[in-house]
Amino acid sequence: MNFFNDLADFSAAEIRELILLAGRLDKHPEPRALEGKVLALLFLSPSLRTLISFQSAMARLGGSTFVVSPEMSIHGLESRSGIVMDGIAAEHIREAVPVIASYGDAIGIRAFAKRENLEDDLADREFHELTSLVDTPYINMESAINHPCQSLADWKTLDDLNVPAKGGKLVLSWSWHPSPMPLAVPAATLHMAALRGMDVTVLRPEGYALPDALMEKAQQAAAASGGSVTQTDDRASAMQDCQVIYASSWASPQHYGDRKAEDKIKPDMPTWCVDEPWFANASSGCYFMHCLPARRGVSVSDDILDGARSVVVAEAHSRMLVQMALLYQMLSKR
Amino acid sequence: MNFFNDLADFSAAEIRELILLAGRLDKHPEPRALEGKVLALLFLSPSLRTLISFQSAMARLGGSTFVVSPEMSIHGLESRSGIVMDGIAAEHIREAVPVIASYGDAIGIRAFAKRENLEDDLADREFHELTSLVDTPYINMESAINHPCQSLADWKTLDDLNVPAKGGKLVLSWSWHPSPMPLAVPAATLHMAALRGMDVTVLRPEGYALPDALMEKAQQAAAASGGSVTQTDDRASAMQDCQVIYASSWASPQHYGDRKAEDKIKPDMPTWCVDEPWFANASSGCYFMHCLPARRGVSVSDDILDGARSVVVAEAHSRMLVQMALLYQMLSKR
Amino acid sequence: MNFFNDLADFSAAEIRELILLAGRLDKHPEPRALEGKVLALLFLSPSLRTLISFQSAMARLGGSTFVVSPEMSIHGLESRSGIVMDGIAAEHIREAVPVIASYGDAIGIRAFAKRENLEDDLADREFHELTSLVDTPYINMESAINHPCQSLADWKTLDDLNVPAKGGKLVLSWSWHPSPMPLAVPAATLHMAALRGMDVTVLRPEGYALPDALMEKAQQAAAASGGSVTQTDDRASAMQDCQVIYASSWASPQHYGDRKAEDKIKPDMPTWCVDEPWFANASSGCYFMHCLPARRGVSVSDDILDGARSVVVAEAHSRMLVQMALLYQMLSKR
Repeated sequence: MNFFNDLADFSAAEIRELILLAGRLDKHPEPRALEGKVLALLFLSPSLRTLISFQSAMARLGGSTFVVSPEMSIHGLESRSGIVMDGIAAEHIREAVPVIASYGDAIGIRAFAKRENLEDDLADREFHELTSLVDTPYINMESAINHPCQSLADWKTLDDLNVPAKGGKLVLSWSWHPSPMPLAVPAATLHMAALRGMDVTVLRPEGYALPDALMEKAQQAAAASGGSVTQTDDRASAMQDCQVIYASSWASPQHYGDRKAEDKIKPDMPTWCVDEPWFANASSGCYFMHCLPARRGVSVSDDILDGARSVVVAEAHSRMLVQMALLYQMLSKR
Repeated sequence: MNFFNDLADFSAAEIRELILLAGRLDKHPEPRALEGKVLALLFLSPSLRTLISFQSAMARLGGSTFVVSPEMSIHGLESRSGIVMDGIAAEHIREAVPVIASYGDAIGIRAFAKRENLEDDLADREFHELTSLVDTPYINMESAINHPCQSLADWKTLDDLNVPAKGGKLVLSWSWHPSPMPLAVPAATLHMAALRGMDVTVLRPEGYALPDALMEKAQQAAAASGGSVTQTDDRASAMQDCQVIYASSWASPQHYGDRKAEDKIKPDMPTWCVDEPWFANASSGCYFMHCLPARRGVSVSDDILDGARSVVVAEAHSRMLVQMALLYQMLSKR
Repeated sequence: MNFFNDLADFSAAEIRELILLAGRLDKHPEPRALEGKVLALLFLSPSLRTLISFQSAMARLGGSTFVVSPEMSIHGLESRSGIVMDGIAAEHIREAVPVIASYGDAIGIRAFAKRENLEDDLADREFHELTSLVDTPYINMESAINHPCQSLADWKTLDDLNVPAKGGKLVLSWSWHPSPMPLAVPAATLHMAALRGMDVTVLRPEGYALPDALMEKAQQAAAASGGSVTQTDDRASAMQDCQVIYASSWASPQHYGDRKAEDKIKPDMPTWCVDEPWFANASSGCYFMHCLPARRGVSVSDDILDGARSVVVAEAHSRMLVQMALLYQMLSKR
């Protein structure tokens, strides 16, 4: 495996194999599998879970990591082309990124969405610019439009919970957040659930419909897997017999990069804070998923997060396990 | 061993066994003992020695660490209950801490005293709230009222210096500091020396008497070990035949959380900066101990720190060694 | 090897042996050579390449690192003597540095030039003060006046490029930079190229002549190796038949520590931004070297950095390889 950027680059069978490997490495540790191997971790935006789950994943296989974030370079990294660097930034990504990559056997890169231009973010321009500078295998640790490690972890979590693949019903629901958030997690989750063969409903307020490009990609995956994809703003119909609700927050694609315009159409917070009444006609035992961090009392109630529905800690734990499998496949035979 | 929170949870014999193990691992390294094992390090307040001594301890045994501090989460961690998280903090400890712990085979937690409410700090409420969120073995890396790793290291240092256990005389002396400091180190040191069987005198100015709860706990340990515990503000009598002075700074328990009130009773700096004249009637070769960081010319003179009495570097080095023993006992058979 | 502070402490033969070892460890990894070994990394100024190249170098040999930077101590480290520490700094280097070193099997130290007093920096006073506090083997990770790891990497890079040692022509050229930069890299590069046996020309504007002490040290090395060392402000003659240009920026030694005075003599930026026309009478295929970070459009043009002449990424990659050799020699038999 030379890169891990998008679940769409893999067949459902290949993904299932990764998840099986994750389970095997969890039960039967291989603490020398990656001895002497090094994973570079480049974070162009802050991270908690992603950072430490990759650090722990490499360590459990006997390998190591090092971390780079922009503030570690003297006065930060410049990324613009053709610039005269007589200001604060002392270093350009065109030198920094190849060097960082060259110290590792693979590199994980996080490049958060700029949320200025929808087309740029849908095309993942920044992430592709970064990977074009790199010769080693690379891993998408969340880009403007994807978060494949989160999706792989969520797939494993769904398996572990015995949520059916074909015929399983998942609602991907918008939830309130103070800021306009990236599309990466909803885009990746939608596609993952479709590829897994689930019946997916995107539940969101007016003005928050996911872009056509994302819906079409997911519909293609659903067509191949026997799943289905739809979106609505009708909560009651969406939640009917739902087995999993996956809450996420995203900026209005309609007013992308224009916070003032978005604020005018943004619904009131309490109406989109996931809470127990949402589950009235859901399947009994319907699970609550969220990629974390989750804002209590804003995106989801304390009752849900502290109650039996919540599997958010299991999701986060799965991150480490699937990343072990990923790193094992990518690096153990090099 | 499922947790290491307080020397009081162990018998003197168990502690001596840990110290023997520390010496053995120092002389006969076991660089694969903890291969594939991971220690999570959660620092809710800054650290130098504790951080790097744990990193080095795990590494010498073939294991790994990862570090979490609040600023690593996007805008920090929320810890209050029932809060509507529409402000700066994006993540609550109730999700973050179980996730962090789940990436490790054990977790070390540092939670500095808030120094607002004496009862809360004596009861170590924040630390217990954090450990209640954790399923893995845990280590107290300094809490509001304890610092067992420091005490274990100091015990070893005293052994290495051949300071007698039973009959050895240790003065735990208050020393000047610009800020009201936590009770963790004096509380832990007092109890450690009593448990070791020493005759311990707490020397402190008026208004700085250690709380009854701490004295009583130490007296119980002394009763079992054949040591003794007392406190006084009479330096000459305290220092008589003293073999070790352990300097530490702590907030006035009488005016806990009320800095203005404390400032009124705080003695002048030069009178409580440990210096050579203090040792006039001490045992010849009386040692100077301090957990570091130490403020030169404020808590202790340059002469003492740079002179033959000072064993502060040995104490700090012992931290690494005893923590190796601790981690070995906790993790090598899991 | 007990310290690595200056290429001048080693014979050319010893350096060639290190470089051979670097090549061998690159081709035939020894991922357990340093198992259980720990390298302390103390950075008194920021670093990107140095930090991660040492982290990766230790990891590839099965060892580990930990990192200390001043901001990790509570309110920073004090280094002045005889000070009353009642201000912000809570810890003195006289305690901190021996403790940090004691947690490692060796320590790497970075202490950037203060650029206040030329004699102090030429004598590397701060670095020597720090190493005097340390009992373990140590490595200079860039001091006020040296950067031996960079020079060792550059030597290897020159070898890898088949640039001749004896008779090879290298121009060490001053290049524009917004700030007065340290003398460490030019001093180390000048000496390295002379020791390698090359004909070295220092090309710099009026007022930027390298201090006599540095020229004399390089001349001694050249005398032994059969190379030569000279300096000039005549670019055309300097670049004639040049095989390698090494660009670097340094403060005017004539106005050291006096930025206002330097600004008066500082040439215009475009005249000292390395660009293709500089190479008019150079050897065909003349390489461009730089230790990075490099300011695009300021120190060197985009065309040069993005073109075939640039070997800056190879130089940076060599850092990791030569440091592996260094650490192997220093630590594998301890």
